[in-house]
Amino acid sequence: MEYASEELRRSFLIKTLVNINGEILSKENAHISVFDRGFLFGDSIYEVTLTYNKTPFLLEEHLDRLEFSAEKISMAIGFTRTEMKEQIQRTVDKLALDRVYIRLIITRGEGEIGLDPGLAVGNNLVIIVKELPENPTSWYELGVDMIIADVQRNSKKSIDPSVKSGNYLNNILAMTQAKDRGAFDAIMLNYKGQVTEATTSNIWIVKDGKVKTPPLKTGLLSGITRQSLLKLGFERNLELSEGDFDVPELMQADECFLTSTTKGIVPITKVDGLPIGDGLPGPMTRKLHSYYREFISSYR
Amino acid sequence: MEYASEELRRSFLIKTLVNINGEILSKENAHISVFDRGFLFGDSIYEVTLTYNKTPFLLEEHLDRLEFSAEKISMAIGFTRTEMKEQIQRTVDKLALDRVYIRLIITRGEGEIGLDPGLAVGNNLVIIVKELPENPTSWYELGVDMIIADVQRNSKKSIDPSVKSGNYLNNILAMTQAKDRGAFDAIMLNYKGQVTEATTSNIWIVKDGKVKTPPLKTGLLSGITRQSLLKLGFERNLELSEGDFDVPELMQADECFLTSTTKGIVPITKVDGLPIGDGLPGPMTRKLHSYYREFISSYR
Repeated sequence: MEYASEELRRSFLIKTLVNINGEILSKENAHISVFDRGFLFGDSIYEVTLTYNKTPFLLEEHLDRLEFSAEKISMAIGFTRTEMKEQIQRTVDKLALDRVYIRLIITRGEGEIGLDPGLAVGNNLVIIVKELPENPTSWYELGVDMIIADVQRNSKKSIDPSVKSGNYLNNILAMTQAKDRGAFDAIMLNYKGQVTEATTSNIWIVKDGKVKTPPLKTGLLSGITRQSLLKLGFERNLELSEGDFDVPELMQADECFLTSTTKGIVPITKVDGLPIGDGLPGPMTRKLHSYYREFISSYR
Repeated sequence: MEYASEELRRSFLIKTLVNINGEILSKENAHISVFDRGFLFGDSIYEVTLTYNKTPFLLEEHLDRLEFSAEKISMAIGFTRTEMKEQIQRTVDKLALDRVYIRLIITRGEGEIGLDPGLAVGNNLVIIVKELPENPTSWYELGVDMIIADVQRNSKKSIDPSVKSGNYLNNILAMTQAKDRGAFDAIMLNYKGQVTEATTSNIWIVKDGKVKTPPLKTGLLSGITRQSLLKLGFERNLELSEGDFDVPELMQADECFLTSTTKGIVPITKVDGLPIGDGLPGPMTRKLHSYYREFISSYR
C-alpha cells in the first residue's frame, strides 16, 4: 500500500513527546505495562484535541466528555481536572511547536488479568503530544470520497458509541473496508439502517438550505466540532438541526460533509463512487467552513 | 471491595514471565509502546490456554482459532505457527512450574496514530506465562451464582463475538454489573433476548437429560472446552447438542453450567438470586465434569 508507506515515512519525521503519569518521555521510550487493562482489553477512555494559538482547543469540553465516558463505563478517574490540564500544558510547552495534536488516554490501570475492574491497581495517564502538519488542502477544495460500511456501528445497548473508549475495532473494520475500496473513510449505519457517523467524524447533509446531523440517540459520539457547529448555526440564524436520515436520503442530498476536531469541516463529494449533488464542495459547506475558521482563529 | 483486594494481594505473589517478540522478561519489565495499536484501539487478538502434564493444552485448536480471529479482522500474523509454538514452549520451560496459564496476544503493531491498519509497521507478539493456582473447590462443589446482564452482547454485525480480540469492554460492562450485585459472573443476551455466553465462558443447560448450548450463529465465542465437550458427548452417546434458549427456558432448566479453558466445567446454581433446579450441582453436570477430568488427565 503506497499510501500507508508514505504515511509511515512521514511519521518518522514527526516530533512527538509522551507524558506517562507525569514523566515526559521520547516516543521511543514511551512504554506501558502489558498488564495495563488498556492493552489487555481496550479498557480505557481518551480524548483528542489540538492547539490553536498555542492553546489546547476547547479543552474543558473535551474533559467534560472524558468524564462522561468514564461515568458510562464506571471508571473512576484518579486525576483531578487541574492535574490533567497541568500535565497536558507541561507536555505541550516542552514540545514548543505551533500546531500540536494532543491525545489524552486514561486506562483503568494495571492489575492481575481478569475482566473484573476491581483487579486494577490505579489509573494510568498517557498524554501523546505531537507535531500536527496541516491537512491536505485537497480535502477542502475537492472533498473526499466515502463508502457505506458493511459493518454496523456498535449498538448503544452493547458499547454505546457516545463513549470514547479504547475499543475501536468496530471502526477499524469499517476503515479497513474504506481503504480496501480506495476511499477516504467509511460511513457507518446502525441496526435500523440509519446513518450514524464516520469512523472518527460526525456526518452532516444539506438539502434545500437545511442542514442536519443524526441525533445522539441514533448511536454516535457527541463530537465537539458537531456541538460547536450546532451553536454557530444557532447564533448565525442558519437552519442547522439534529435529525435522522438513511442512505437514500444521503445520496439525494445537495451537499454532505464531515466534522472532526482534527479535520475541521471536510466536504464529502462522493459516496460509494456516486457524486453527492454536483460532486463538488457546496456553498453551505463552504459557508460553514468559513464561519468555523473565524471561530478557530479567534480562539485563545 | 474485599474480593478485589484479596485477589490483588494474591496476584503479587504469582510467578510470571512475559515474552515480547522473543525476549523473555520479568513482569516488572514487560512493557509495550503506547503507539501499539493493541493499546490505542484494542486492535489485537489473543488466546488463553493452560498446561496439563507440562504440555500447553489443545494448543493447535487455540492457534486455529487465533488464525480465524486474524482472518475475521483482516490481520496478517507475521509469525509462523512453529515460531509461536516455540516461543510459548521456551517461556513455559523457563517458568518451570507444574500448572501454568498461557496468554498469547498478537497486536497489529506500532504505527502512527490512525485507524487505517496500513499505518502499522508489524505485529507485536506478547506471551504471558504465569503460575495458575487451582480454582476454588467451592466452584465445583457448590456452584456459582450468575446475573443476567443488562448490557447486550456485541452484535455479530458490529464486532463478531467469535473473534477473540482486545476489545473486551462489552464483557467488562457485564462483569461490572455482576460484581456490583455480588455475583460470580454475568450471562449475556443478544438483541433477540437469546442467551449467548458468559463474559469469558460458554453456557449450557440440562433439561430431562438433554444438554444444550447456544449455536455459534447466536453470537458467541466458539469455546475450545465447548468443542471438546460436544465431542465427548458424541463419543459417549450423550444427548449434547447446539440449540437456542432464552431466559425463561434457562430458569426452568434442571441444571446449568459454564465451560471455559481455565475453569473447566463449573455448575451454575443460581441466576439473578433464584435457584436453578434444586440449587445444587446436578448429576449430568457432575457426570460431564468427571468425563472432562478424564480427558484432561490423559492429555499429553
